[in-house]
Amino acid sequence: MPEVSRPLDALNRARDKKVIVELKNHKQYVGNLKSFDIHINVVLENAEEREDGEVKRKLGVIFIRGDTITVISPE
Amino acid sequence: MPEVSRPLDALNRARDKKVIVELKNHKQYVGNLKSFDIHINVVLENAEEREDGEVKRKLGVIFIRGDTITVISPE
Amino acid sequence: MPEVSRPLDALNRARDKKVIVELKNHKQYVGNLKSFDIHINVVLENAEEREDGEVKRKLGVIFIRGDTITVISPE
Amino acid sequence: MPEVSRPLDALNRARDKKVIVELKNHKQYVGNLKSFDIHINVVLENAEEREDGEVKRKLGVIFIRGDTITVISPE
Amino acid sequence: MPEVSRPLDALNRARDKKVIVELKNHKQYVGNLKSFDIHINVVLENAEEREDGEVKRKLGVIFIRGDTITVISPE
Amino acid sequence: MPEVSRPLDALNRARDKKVIVELKNHKQYVGNLKSFDIHINVVLENAEEREDGEVKRKLGVIFIRGDTITVISPE
Amino acid sequence: MPEVSRPLDALNRARDKKVIVELKNHKQYVGNLKSFDIHINVVLENAEEREDGEVKRKLGVIFIRGDTITVISPE
Repeated sequence: MPEVSRPLDALNRARDKKVIVELKNHKQYVGNLKSFDIHINVVLENAEEREDGEVKRKLGVIFIRGDTITVISPE
Repeated sequence: MPEVSRPLDALNRARDKKVIVELKNHKQYVGNLKSFDIHINVVLENAEEREDGEVKRKLGVIFIRGDTITVISPE
Repeated sequence: MPEVSRPLDALNRARDKKVIVELKNHKQYVGNLKSFDIHINVVLENAEEREDGEVKRKLGVIFIRGDTITVISPE
Repeated sequence: MPEVSRPLDALNRARDKKVIVELKNHKQYVGNLKSFDIHINVVLENAEEREDGEVKRKLGVIFIRGDTITVISPE
Repeated sequence: MPEVSRPLDALNRARDKKVIVELKNHKQYVGNLKSFDIHINVVLENAEEREDGEVKRKLGVIFIRGDTITVISPE
Repeated sequence: MPEVSRPLDALNRARDKKVIVELKNHKQYVGNLKSFDIHINVVLENAEEREDGEVKRKLGVIFIRGDTITVISPE
Repeated sequence: MPEVSRPLDALNRARDKKVIVELKNHKQYVGNLKSFDIHINVVLENAEEREDGEVKRKLGVIFIRGDTITVISPE
């Protein structure tokens, strides 16, 4: 019997892949998804911050607090 | 005796069907409902982002954090 | 001894009846109350979206996330 | 020894009495307090909606979600 | 050994005394602190509502939902 | 083996010392840190309220609800 | 078998190192990460407050409440 898939499975498949994380404050962080937890706290590596699609800052590693996130998608 | 239906039953019936997810920030995501959980975290496939009814971006898969969602309906 | 009534009893009495659900973002959804849970997540059938009393969209079924709701009343 | 009184005792004494419920969105609902719970979800009967002290709508029964409420007082 | 004091001790000492309760929406309620709980839900007696220091309304009893409160201080 | 330090240890070391507490509504309260709890509810003594660095009010004791606080620092 | 990494591991590796903490109110605090907990409450030492990249205040120690934080990154 196939198991029902859950939302965190999709994040799990995106591990080590490049994703865009969008925040309630309209900032975007693009980087490799290193880890996440049930609160959707997220860590990206080789990250950059974008605003309106434009690169604002290069960041090595960034920790993003889950409750500030709206959506996460592979780039 | 018929069981009382619950809100998540309606989401369950919408699995693999096309739905519109509306966010507190007024964005809309349209796609096939792949999974959801009790926090109403949602994953859509073949998704696109719309703003005021207009397509803004094509997205493969998107994870939407539950607390940012207002309503979900079949398209 | 009569039992003390609780708020969810009122929602229970409104099952399958027409209700107006008002949201923090000032939208209104009118439809038949199909189900609700303790988070006040709600499902309406034969729903329509109104803004300032005017019908904006006809919807079959709609799932409304509880934390976005302000009030629910029979129409 | 007298027991220390608790906030919900005050709501309990207001049962079936006329109260004003004020919301974060500045709306006011006036009606008879039929029920409440620990989340301060509230049901009023013979309710009316007021805005800036002016009656906007007559409502039979209204369910008000607790987290949208600021204060409750007997009229 | 003296016990470490806790924030609710300060509210306990203010019982039956006149306090000012300030809300996130900038309203102030002044009255005798009748009761409070761990959510900081508060009941005042002989209360009045003030806005910018000016009395707006006389209220007998008022229940204030904790999550709308910023600070409480003896007048 | 040295224990890992935790954020509340820093508040503990500031007990009875003068601290600045900043709120989401941009007000600042300066006073002696009398007590705090895990919600970061805080009580100050000999407190004063400041806005843009300017003293607005002298207060004896003030209870500050934790969820309204952004930062706490020794003055 | 390698363990799956978690978001708090990244904060753990940043202990005693210089980090930038960004808040929902757009303030930034730069300093050495002394401690954090599961709520992402954070304590920085040798901290300074910045706004739009400009130093506003030098602070010795600062406690930052977790729910006000958006992102944390090594400088």
